Amino acid sequence: MTANLKVKPASATQKWVYSFGKEVCDGAASQKNLLGGKGANLAEMSRIGLPVPPGFTLSTEICTYFYQHGNSYPAGLEDQVAQGLAQVEKETGRKFGDKKEPLLLSVRSGARASMPGMMDTILNIGLNDETVISLGDNRFAWDCYRRLIQMYSDVVLNVAHDHFEDALDTYKRRNALKLDTDIDADGWKELVGAYKDIVRRDTGKPFPQDPQEQLWGAISAVFKSWMTPRAVTYRKLNDIPEDWGTAVNVQAVVFGNMGDDCATGVAFTRDPSTGENAFYGEYLVNAQGEDVVAGIRTPLPISQMQKDMPETYKELLAIREKLEQHYKDMQDIEFTIQNKKLYMLQTRTGKRTAQAALRAAVEMVEEKLISKEEAILRIPPQSLDQLLHPTIDPKAEKTVLTRGLPASPGAAVGIIVLDADDAEALAGEGKKVILCRTETSPEDIHGMHAAQGILTSRGGMTSHAAVVARGMGKPCVAGAGEILIDYKAQTLTVQGKVLKPGDTLTLDGATGEVLDGAMKMVQPAMTGHFATLMGWADAARRLKIRTNAETPLDAATARKFGAEGIGLSRTEHMFFDPARILYVRQMILAETSEERREALAKIEPFQKEDFISLFKIMKGLPVTIRLLDPPLHEFLPQEDAEIEELAKTLSIPPARVRQRIQRLHESNPMLGLRGCRLGITYPEIYEMQVRAIFEAALAVKKETGETVGLEIMVPLIATKREMDILKEMIDKTAKTLGATDYMTGTMIELPRAALRAGEIAESAEFFSYGTNDLTQTTFGISRDDAGAFLPDYQKNGIFAADPFASIDVDGVGEMVKIASERGRKTRAKLKLGICGEHGGDPASIAFFHEVGLDYVSCSPYRVPIARLAAAQAAIKDKPQAALAEKK
Amino acid sequence: MTANLKVKPASATQKWVYSFGKEVCDGAASQKNLLGGKGANLAEMSRIGLPVPPGFTLSTEICTYFYQHGNSYPAGLEDQVAQGLAQVEKETGRKFGDKKEPLLLSVRSGARASMPGMMDTILNIGLNDETVISLGDNRFAWDCYRRLIQMYSDVVLNVAHDHFEDALDTYKRRNALKLDTDIDADGWKELVGAYKDIVRRDTGKPFPQDPQEQLWGAISAVFKSWMTPRAVTYRKLNDIPEDWGTAVNVQAVVFGNMGDDCATGVAFTRDPSTGENAFYGEYLVNAQGEDVVAGIRTPLPISQMQKDMPETYKELLAIREKLEQHYKDMQDIEFTIQNKKLYMLQTRTGKRTAQAALRAAVEMVEEKLISKEEAILRIPPQSLDQLLHPTIDPKAEKTVLTRGLPASPGAAVGIIVLDADDAEALAGEGKKVILCRTETSPEDIHGMHAAQGILTSRGGMTSHAAVVARGMGKPCVAGAGEILIDYKAQTLTVQGKVLKPGDTLTLDGATGEVLDGAMKMVQPAMTGHFATLMGWADAARRLKIRTNAETPLDAATARKFGAEGIGLSRTEHMFFDPARILYVRQMILAETSEERREALAKIEPFQKEDFISLFKIMKGLPVTIRLLDPPLHEFLPQEDAEIEELAKTLSIPPARVRQRIQRLHESNPMLGLRGCRLGITYPEIYEMQVRAIFEAALAVKKETGETVGLEIMVPLIATKREMDILKEMIDKTAKTLGATDYMTGTMIELPRAALRAGEIAESAEFFSYGTNDLTQTTFGISRDDAGAFLPDYQKNGIFAADPFASIDVDGVGEMVKIASERGRKTRAKLKLGICGEHGGDPASIAFFHEVGLDYVSCSPYRVPIARLAAAQAAIKDKPQAALAEKK
Repeated sequence: MTANLKVKPASATQKWVYSFGKEVCDGAASQKNLLGGKGANLAEMSRIGLPVPPGFTLSTEICTYFYQHGNSYPAGLEDQVAQGLAQVEKETGRKFGDKKEPLLLSVRSGARASMPGMMDTILNIGLNDETVISLGDNRFAWDCYRRLIQMYSDVVLNVAHDHFEDALDTYKRRNALKLDTDIDADGWKELVGAYKDIVRRDTGKPFPQDPQEQLWGAISAVFKSWMTPRAVTYRKLNDIPEDWGTAVNVQAVVFGNMGDDCATGVAFTRDPSTGENAFYGEYLVNAQGEDVVAGIRTPLPISQMQKDMPETYKELLAIREKLEQHYKDMQDIEFTIQNKKLYMLQTRTGKRTAQAALRAAVEMVEEKLISKEEAILRIPPQSLDQLLHPTIDPKAEKTVLTRGLPASPGAAVGIIVLDADDAEALAGEGKKVILCRTETSPEDIHGMHAAQGILTSRGGMTSHAAVVARGMGKPCVAGAGEILIDYKAQTLTVQGKVLKPGDTLTLDGATGEVLDGAMKMVQPAMTGHFATLMGWADAARRLKIRTNAETPLDAATARKFGAEGIGLSRTEHMFFDPARILYVRQMILAETSEERREALAKIEPFQKEDFISLFKIMKGLPVTIRLLDPPLHEFLPQEDAEIEELAKTLSIPPARVRQRIQRLHESNPMLGLRGCRLGITYPEIYEMQVRAIFEAALAVKKETGETVGLEIMVPLIATKREMDILKEMIDKTAKTLGATDYMTGTMIELPRAALRAGEIAESAEFFSYGTNDLTQTTFGISRDDAGAFLPDYQKNGIFAADPFASIDVDGVGEMVKIASERGRKTRAKLKLGICGEHGGDPASIAFFHEVGLDYVSCSPYRVPIARLAAAQAAIKDKPQAALAEKK
Repeated sequence: MTANLKVKPASATQKWVYSFGKEVCDGAASQKNLLGGKGANLAEMSRIGLPVPPGFTLSTEICTYFYQHGNSYPAGLEDQVAQGLAQVEKETGRKFGDKKEPLLLSVRSGARASMPGMMDTILNIGLNDETVISLGDNRFAWDCYRRLIQMYSDVVLNVAHDHFEDALDTYKRRNALKLDTDIDADGWKELVGAYKDIVRRDTGKPFPQDPQEQLWGAISAVFKSWMTPRAVTYRKLNDIPEDWGTAVNVQAVVFGNMGDDCATGVAFTRDPSTGENAFYGEYLVNAQGEDVVAGIRTPLPISQMQKDMPETYKELLAIREKLEQHYKDMQDIEFTIQNKKLYMLQTRTGKRTAQAALRAAVEMVEEKLISKEEAILRIPPQSLDQLLHPTIDPKAEKTVLTRGLPASPGAAVGIIVLDADDAEALAGEGKKVILCRTETSPEDIHGMHAAQGILTSRGGMTSHAAVVARGMGKPCVAGAGEILIDYKAQTLTVQGKVLKPGDTLTLDGATGEVLDGAMKMVQPAMTGHFATLMGWADAARRLKIRTNAETPLDAATARKFGAEGIGLSRTEHMFFDPARILYVRQMILAETSEERREALAKIEPFQKEDFISLFKIMKGLPVTIRLLDPPLHEFLPQEDAEIEELAKTLSIPPARVRQRIQRLHESNPMLGLRGCRLGITYPEIYEMQVRAIFEAALAVKKETGETVGLEIMVPLIATKREMDILKEMIDKTAKTLGATDYMTGTMIELPRAALRAGEIAESAEFFSYGTNDLTQTTFGISRDDAGAFLPDYQKNGIFAADPFASIDVDGVGEMVKIASERGRKTRAKLKLGICGEHGGDPASIAFFHEVGLDYVSCSPYRVPIARLAAAQAAIKDKPQAALAEKK
């Protein structure tokens, strides 16, 4: 016990210290909250009989106490540490501070959640001028001692790191040595002297020789490292609460560097890249763990050990088997061999690629290690993204120009274009292009379609570019704020580098990186394991998965990915096609209902053809077609040249075009003349659409004999009366045309519609939650404008997640619940679905499962993710008993 | 029974016809739905023994039957009509169609709700070539006969009106006669011949001589008149359902024009202009009712009758007394005297001015005719508006230029100005100005303050101009779409007439009329009756009434009108003052928190002074101050000249000003960076405001010794965490300054806040419903943009009323209910109020009373309206028993 350790009396005697080792084991894996991840794991390894160097864990409760009581410890802790230490001494047969057989200790942090590299570790506690002699007085002993001084000074005494490096460099230069390994025993001894001088000079005190002072200094330093700025930042970024605290693990040190019968290594119980059931790892003979990490010597593959250390290898294989049987998952282990004796230092669930996760999960089911349900639960749904898109070759050398938001996964290579028309033109010539825009608008759709990837300098994860790109399954990096695009000068400037159209870029939509030049790509390989697991998922889930699709390409892609219908077909996306936008504009500029009908008559055949191709692709599966939704001015040209061209074509003065555009201007278009309000105000628009839909359905039925699963959806309903008026029009049109098989429903995307769902369900046969708009109106937040304060909102803990990416269960979620309950009370068989961005978010899908929706609809590339997430939700929803039974 | 009357058998025998008169009376006043207003009234008058010419009513159910069965009548009707007719014959001693003593009948419509002049009436049914002789064969008889032919031809036979007028004119010209009264018996006889010729020529048939045919023709014509276009339009405008139908009243005709012992007149039981308890009316000797209306002869005041017909006058006075005792309200009566015998033709509640309503109600309480509660219920709250503002002299001759929306009541005369600065300058010179703008923005506030009234060519009842004008109590006509304002040419063009600044206009904010030149004004006179009734109202209501006020003038006005505190003080309105807008802009353009603080430091003393004056005026009453709410760009200049001026003053390039304005641009500002989001993103703004508020409160307490009823309100809360963060800042600031007496609360104006009210109430000590924003988000409708579809929505019956004017009880109302219940569950004493536009709407106030709010807050000029509406809500809310007891 040292002088600078403050102690305050604690009111109750409590267990603060937990031993582990061969003889005593107080903890277990389940006590992660109390012992931290590492401590709980060491306890668990001890418990199942693995050879773990003995030690003890100071619980996370001490950390909490420490910070609540002005960096002091509870009474009784000192005694409990002494008892823990005595047990280690007993098991190792060594004594802490003993001159003959000194026990050396490591002191390591270990929080509930892994925070790699964020907190401190000190090795070789217990070495001093005397014990170093009994350790061997050889190169190894003095090397260990200098390592202690260096680490301890850095972590506990706050002596600057580079002083020691300077001394080491000076010594090597003076003695004409190149590598640390060239330094002999005397050299390290001399350096220990130099290091101790540094400590005295820098702190005004000698390096502490008392092992107890060393131990408590190290423990306090580790507790204190919980609050270093980098740890605080890491926790904020990873949503780790501050009050969790860290545990401290004190453990006997074992050495892998005492000679050629020593080694240290890391291994995975299966291949973490492929998931293959093969022991995978590497080791270094006569080395410390940090040497493996440092990468100075090249480690040997673990298979080599079979030859070099056959006994130990056999022991390791048995441990591998035991670990997988015990943890029922792939493990990532660390071990050390000290004089032929194997010690396990660490085991944890192994990080793996999505592909490896899939293969391991499927094979573990085949090996009867886990159930199908467990296999399904083991795959993070989001990770499937990696399997559906090309990725950058991990071996490629990268020049990162800047980083934006990882808005839509996949990687893309192409030449820069700054304009949608150019993108289309160049793509038509067979060029691969990256469309780079400050932000995109619906007028850029054709350019986005033509491009390999999309890059924007403004906008968030739910900006137009991001949403549309995800819908198309195209890579997108959005909001790369360091990029300046100058349309006039035709330049794209980033970090002072000026790029021009024609220069090549690579985008990584999974990381948000913008890379210079063309990177090598890896194409996705969907192996049989993918299909197997998805099959299990499909059997397990209750929710149906549909897709949001307008184009035949999207619809076909989604079918390939397993979509069971279309949940949202946005008819307005069909309006932007260059072949029809002129008629659309003519329709909007019409000043009488007759003029409007004329223009609509020209659009109608296009719409009908669109629907015919969608219906054919979906082969009788449900297809939900939404009537026109966005404000009309979205379709109008903005720039002078376009306006003049339009005016010429329509033979009206440009001033009239401008006037009409001006008249259509709205202060808050999101809350303006859109959705079913268009259908009420300009009935002829919806009439045309409904006619085209029914005629298409009838044509397909006639041609293929298959009945279309037609669902007509009216957007933005706020009142029953709106629904009644429009349903009457739909039914009347159907009757006129002789159409019979269809449902009429509405989006629930306004709070009022959610509240009045009971009466709206009298007319509507299905509800589809438009959670984008519902989030906008429930929160009063425009998705387009949220960027100005969302960062501050996340920083201040107001939003845990972007509510447009993952549904706000408490608010928007209650709206969905209310509407579902009230709707089903009126119409028990009311079909319920969701077609907002949340339809592809696993957390949101779990919620939608819970509230009893029938389906979710998402963009094509998210369909597999949604299938898996829906299965996980269904499995988690089962009573635990039923789950256990199934195993 | 005539041949063209179709009859279908009805399944059940049912009572279709209700007699009234001295001997038999089947109906009563309570049967208005069945008998129509007129029929029920005739029955009621018979029932209480008034001299009513006998007759019978065909119920509204026949009208319904008529339209549901292809314009046919139920079986049994014919018999019932015959019975009714027999009773009339019995009571009058005359026979229908009798050649000696013919009974003449009138056939009149009478719906549930009054539809004056919208449907048809036919008099003197039963006259023909034979009966006319027995009627007297004199001038009177032939005059009656020609009137019948004329009316019947017009209404039943659809003969064009002007044929008869032509014939009459020709006759007068030929005989050199000027007036109808100059025509003698022979003349009318000759004209009857001419009229009959017209009928034969026009219809191919002679004028029907059969009295039964005449009767049924008239009945059918009246039922059919329910569906004439003008009746349909009237019902739409007045929210009268089509399926109500009309009743038809058949009644013995009495004549006021049979000689000098005959007369006809109308009267009010009290003076309808002043409410004075004096018999008020006029009559014409020897005249028909239509002569009084036609205005050819000048009627005599009713007091004259005391001399001329003392007996009848006495009888009339007794009836007046009886009617008031029976109906307990001022009556509007019609009567006819036939050969000295008085007949009552009509009685109904008399229309009156607001002033008359007040006086009559108060005096009737004093006369113990009605209870105080009844007096309170009798005044339409909206009508008080008439008493608070100057009005145009009703006798003035008016040239109406155009009509806009009656956006803010009161009348104003002034010269046209097209610019807010000019308005201020000219008003400064003592000129009275009318500010005319396409629409107004917050930058026009000083001009609106300076103006007598405001006229806009764009915007609705809740446009900026309308809302602010109502707040200021200034007359406003908004959205006068026929007006074209050309700022460049400095002209205001209306209906081709070009006006210029300096020309004089008069606005009538109560009717929406824009009048040429200066009209004579009548100043409001608030008599003691106003004070008396408002005193009773104050005693009866439970809701407190506060006002929305920022300026000392508004606050003082509101106090005068009885406001019990300020429910909403919009601090941003203080930002537009020319003396500080520059600093506000500097603050917004700041690029660092320090720069922002510097600018804010300049604004702070102004804010403090503002608060000090408000607190002093409100003398300890509660004052709710809302922290900054609108998007910042609202404060920035829009025009080039302004931008350059600002840039110069701030010594930064105009380009930077433009850039920053551009950066602040939002797609949907209503859903953007505003409200508490400003306080989270730029904490220094709210910190400044909170400091200024507390310092002002402390200064006032020190000076006056009175504690300020301070309530600090945070706008646009969506989550508890926002409230927590800002409350912490407020509490910290209070602590630093030593302020103790205050409450912190929030506006509930987002659906999410309503749903999460339970947890928000953990931090918030009061809620104030911001129903403007809550309506916008619940409906997903922008108040500024609703104009594009609101007319279609009202036309299609989707909205019964503008939801921004009167609260949508079903949707927005449920939000308010949910929030109130959840909030009070957490905090039983949570103070609840409302400060949206709905706070001044009587229907909304009734709802707010019902859901248990503590107060409503409205613009100063609506405070009396709110006081009365709150009292009415409280009275209606009482159990009927309790109410009866109190009488």
